Amino acid sequence: MSLEAFFKPRGVAVVGATPKPKGGLAIVTNLVMGFTGGIYPVNPNYDTISDIKCYPAISEVPDPVDLAILFVPAKFVPAIVDECGQRGIRAVMIQSAGFAETGPQGKILQEEVDHVAKKHGIRIWGPNCLGMVDSVNKNVFSFASPNMWTVGHIPGNVSLIVQSGMLAGGFLIDNMSHGTMGMSKVCSIGNKSDVDECDLLEYLVSDPDTRAIGMYLEAIPRGRRFAEICKKSPKPIVVLKGGTSQAGAKAAASHTASMAGNGAIISGILAQCGVVQARDFKQMLDICRAFGISPKMDPAMQGRVAILTYSGGAGIIASDFVENFGLKVADLSQETKEKLATVYPDWMPVANPVDLWPAVEKNGGRKVFKTAMEAVCADPDVDMVFLHLHAAGGHLDMDIGQLITMARIAGKPIFCWIIGIMDAARTVHIKAQEMGAPTYRELSRAVESMSVVLQWYKARAMPSSGKDFQPEPAKVRCQVLMEGKQGTLDEHDSKQILASAGIPVVKEVLADTPEKAAEAAHNLGFPVVMKGLAPGMVHKTEQGLVRLGVNTGQEVQTVFAELKAAMGDQGRVLVQQQARIDMEIIVGLVRDPQFGPCLMCGLGGIYAEVLNDAVFAMAPLNMDEALALISRLKNQRMLDGFRGATPVDREALAEVLVCLGGLGMEMEGIREVDINPLVITDGKPLAVDATVIL
Amino acid sequence: MSLEAFFKPRGVAVVGATPKPKGGLAIVTNLVMGFTGGIYPVNPNYDTISDIKCYPAISEVPDPVDLAILFVPAKFVPAIVDECGQRGIRAVMIQSAGFAETGPQGKILQEEVDHVAKKHGIRIWGPNCLGMVDSVNKNVFSFASPNMWTVGHIPGNVSLIVQSGMLAGGFLIDNMSHGTMGMSKVCSIGNKSDVDECDLLEYLVSDPDTRAIGMYLEAIPRGRRFAEICKKSPKPIVVLKGGTSQAGAKAAASHTASMAGNGAIISGILAQCGVVQARDFKQMLDICRAFGISPKMDPAMQGRVAILTYSGGAGIIASDFVENFGLKVADLSQETKEKLATVYPDWMPVANPVDLWPAVEKNGGRKVFKTAMEAVCADPDVDMVFLHLHAAGGHLDMDIGQLITMARIAGKPIFCWIIGIMDAARTVHIKAQEMGAPTYRELSRAVESMSVVLQWYKARAMPSSGKDFQPEPAKVRCQVLMEGKQGTLDEHDSKQILASAGIPVVKEVLADTPEKAAEAAHNLGFPVVMKGLAPGMVHKTEQGLVRLGVNTGQEVQTVFAELKAAMGDQGRVLVQQQARIDMEIIVGLVRDPQFGPCLMCGLGGIYAEVLNDAVFAMAPLNMDEALALISRLKNQRMLDGFRGATPVDREALAEVLVCLGGLGMEMEGIREVDINPLVITDGKPLAVDATVIL
Repeated sequence: MSLEAFFKPRGVAVVGATPKPKGGLAIVTNLVMGFTGGIYPVNPNYDTISDIKCYPAISEVPDPVDLAILFVPAKFVPAIVDECGQRGIRAVMIQSAGFAETGPQGKILQEEVDHVAKKHGIRIWGPNCLGMVDSVNKNVFSFASPNMWTVGHIPGNVSLIVQSGMLAGGFLIDNMSHGTMGMSKVCSIGNKSDVDECDLLEYLVSDPDTRAIGMYLEAIPRGRRFAEICKKSPKPIVVLKGGTSQAGAKAAASHTASMAGNGAIISGILAQCGVVQARDFKQMLDICRAFGISPKMDPAMQGRVAILTYSGGAGIIASDFVENFGLKVADLSQETKEKLATVYPDWMPVANPVDLWPAVEKNGGRKVFKTAMEAVCADPDVDMVFLHLHAAGGHLDMDIGQLITMARIAGKPIFCWIIGIMDAARTVHIKAQEMGAPTYRELSRAVESMSVVLQWYKARAMPSSGKDFQPEPAKVRCQVLMEGKQGTLDEHDSKQILASAGIPVVKEVLADTPEKAAEAAHNLGFPVVMKGLAPGMVHKTEQGLVRLGVNTGQEVQTVFAELKAAMGDQGRVLVQQQARIDMEIIVGLVRDPQFGPCLMCGLGGIYAEVLNDAVFAMAPLNMDEALALISRLKNQRMLDGFRGATPVDREALAEVLVCLGGLGMEMEGIREVDINPLVITDGKPLAVDATVIL
Repeated sequence: MSLEAFFKPRGVAVVGATPKPKGGLAIVTNLVMGFTGGIYPVNPNYDTISDIKCYPAISEVPDPVDLAILFVPAKFVPAIVDECGQRGIRAVMIQSAGFAETGPQGKILQEEVDHVAKKHGIRIWGPNCLGMVDSVNKNVFSFASPNMWTVGHIPGNVSLIVQSGMLAGGFLIDNMSHGTMGMSKVCSIGNKSDVDECDLLEYLVSDPDTRAIGMYLEAIPRGRRFAEICKKSPKPIVVLKGGTSQAGAKAAASHTASMAGNGAIISGILAQCGVVQARDFKQMLDICRAFGISPKMDPAMQGRVAILTYSGGAGIIASDFVENFGLKVADLSQETKEKLATVYPDWMPVANPVDLWPAVEKNGGRKVFKTAMEAVCADPDVDMVFLHLHAAGGHLDMDIGQLITMARIAGKPIFCWIIGIMDAARTVHIKAQEMGAPTYRELSRAVESMSVVLQWYKARAMPSSGKDFQPEPAKVRCQVLMEGKQGTLDEHDSKQILASAGIPVVKEVLADTPEKAAEAAHNLGFPVVMKGLAPGMVHKTEQGLVRLGVNTGQEVQTVFAELKAAMGDQGRVLVQQQARIDMEIIVGLVRDPQFGPCLMCGLGGIYAEVLNDAVFAMAPLNMDEALALISRLKNQRMLDGFRGATPVDREALAEVLVCLGGLGMEMEGIREVDINPLVITDGKPLAVDATVIL
């Protein structure tokens, strides 16, 4: 069932409505203030509530009624949901608390509600939530304080999904009262016993009133579904994930009993899906605001910024940020410089940042800023404009609408940094944003937002690398190799499985006598590596079971005996080609409880321990995704070859990731794979040691 | 001369006063609004200005007059400064523009002013500046718009020095009108022909009205003096340095014709001097505010934070930031948990972050927050409190003053994150800060400020390592070695100079025949390294003039001949012990135009190219400073030894830095030193290759 009834019901029944100053009254009041459909309070004790006819039971409520909002003690909820079902209502929003969040008994009650709902085909929103506020259509389906109407709704095109009721409410009130950001729909998802962030995200992605979506999430249980929706979304999604640190994850577990999951894996998957990951609440809103307000950006744009400022100092700091956030301070064309010179004092050289104060002193702010805006708008070497304003009257009192209109007509995105006398500045902020220019009080945030928005449009438009690589299905071969095995496989068995999936592994032979070992070594070519594989011994090196550089047949036989002895005459001996190591990579497959099979790629060897440089993505990967994953390594330049080393063949490395991802998808029985190291020799990857856990 | 006359004059003459609505009137009006001493407008054309007696010339102004503010066309300034001198005025603030900032002619005029001023012992503030605003004493010595009086001065204890007039003015107005940060003195330094950031900083460090100092600087020409004042300052100094990027440095050069300098060097020196480096304007003010408002912190404190919140989500994000900014989420004592349980609903477990909403619903905000604050204040495992407030009336309407007082009495620093209905939230912000709790609208900024303040108190109280190391003066030995040489010295000469300064260098011998080379190799022990040293050939490796692993006497003779041939029978041949390389470090000495001799220490080898991990400090260094410098390397963990390697002997490495710093101080003739690599073998550093430039 679509969620339409939750957002656009023709009539709403409020079970638990009351004339007393409680949540049940707040819900009715909020409906009266804005909702244009039928409002049907339900309470057997009253004839009217807030001058609206009150019904004794849900069964008595007239048509049409698409949504019931429940705000009654938890224990009554299952019966009422049943009544809703009988009355033909298919959307029930339970705002009452007292369910799974309160422990085992509440959990049982919540399951009971689910059961009843399923029987009737009802979708449940909540329980334990603050409901939904739609500032565009003025639908407030929430027990939140009707105070919010006194500060006023500012319709906008940013919608939010928030896994924290108080936060949703708090932010909404804060935001509404500042008046500098419009909102579309704010959804508080509560215990999400049925409707969850995936359902709502899917709805908002198609919602014509929503242009950008911000989310605060603690857990993403339907991780793969979530990722799929994000990947396909034509709208920007900005996610603030709570619990990315150890302390935060612990707090999340105690808050909504939700597993925060592995922060690094989630960050990797968000990046893979084109989601912008936010750091903080306000920063999330600041970035959403930029997406909501700024016109679509041309992905071919280079990000060359003209900085128009009234302060040399602000121009310099702006330049620092433009460079640090990956944009460029535009080199102005000769024509632009000449136009600017007409308003500049003679002594002042024209440059970008365009420091306009001396010109303003000479010619007044209106004329100077208009001239400057005209010049940079006409400049083919300028892609975007960063405008600084000081709202305090005097010289700098100007027609902001005119300036922004010029930039819009020229097709140049314009962002503003505005300070000044509080009220005057606020007025300018609001006006500028209405005209399509996102505005900020913090300079760095303005540049960051500008950069994030451009990068998002660029990433969405990124052409495919054209590389295609489909590994052979490995299932049949793998099943044979896994037959009868369980737990942690030894190195040789592990690599056979990897090889069957198309991953290049080092040449090696199991030998059961010293003589066969020597013969194998001879065939492989000296020097060889010899390893003792004993059940339960995973730290081979620490246990003296790895011998590098074995150089002669005689030596092979001696080492064979030593390894056997070290293993108490148990275990197997492996003779292996010794690869030259230009670099070590680690590649792994893990099964995340939320996202299923995920791939890890990291720098290995000494780098692994110190640089801690590893990136994650959800399997399967295509070549483009695998190449993108590799390029997300912080120190990816290490792959490019320096001091004459051959660069790592990124395609070959990507193919390993594609194969491993495919293996993870095909073979559910494989719990974990750790290829460490994946040695790079002459640019090519080779799995030299590996562990597969079934 | 002290700067007292600029800040606390008994009388002020305003040359260029006028009744017309211009800057000259603004200066008088600003004085009338707040200054309690004598105000003496000077203008031959008027008898009174703003009902104050006007004087025809500076010579006519009555006693006492300690300061003259000049706001007349630049060309008249030298003569007026002369008149000031004759009148006995020793402090002149020139707010007129038209000097060095306008090019060569203006520069000559500015020099003329300096000359006249020196003759009379006058200190000049400016020219081309916005003057000074002292919100505590209500002294506004500035042509800035008297509008500021309508928004109101908020006295505080943060003072600012700003190298950008418009910025100083803009920020002041913005800040005053928001009302959430008190200020002491805001100084706009303009062209700083005489009084500069060092003078003002020195004054403010001793100013009883100033507790914390924020600075926006583009250049720091008297770098060493600046560093010295910062090092000694008992007050926190927060510096935003403009022009740290290439684009920003270019902009700075064009703005105040000032060299922004090398961002990495400046960052290093700021860290060395205990200065907090800010990223952005607002962030600088936010951190200054924390220093100004929060009581002194106990440096022994562990930074264990109790998070009191009305939102589980905000508690989780706060936990993430607490961990990421190096603080700890406190483990609450059993007693605290029991106290909290008395107000919590039964089903809810007590933990930190302390999520109070369900308790608030049950028992009301006032009681619950008071109980919670009491509990964490009494908890010996809690050092600091992070309080979240939602100012929108209702349940969360509480006595913020009471809560903060409890924390102050308990000696626990308290920081607040406050959102809500704009005006209500602003009132709470102001009240909380008056009570000593810094408040923020952005959650991360609150935690960052908390962390920065604590780290500053900790760093100031850091005990000395007790390591003492005084290198022998090298001057006499060095002078001999440098005798008759110039430009880039070859490796051998360079290392001899380093050795003379006490730096361990690899054993090596210059050989002028193949036989002597072989003999030297024999004495040094095989294998040896052989190098051809030819004048002008600095890239020896690329030119094939470095041979590693020369193993026999015969080989030595062959290589000798080859090297000689490669150098066209010119140059010298060096035979060197071959050091085993566990790790490579780069150490350097450069002369910064602003800060003089500075030291660099970075990771070498392949790390140098990819990790770009190098840190800087001003020479000379003592052992504590050298050890601190090493520990500022991003990847300093690489020095600790992994996979069984011997850790780098940090003291020995520090001694190299101390020696090199001493050399730089003693020998002004040395322009640059590059030790690359400083090889680490068994933990000990050894200079294997080096270049000294005279």
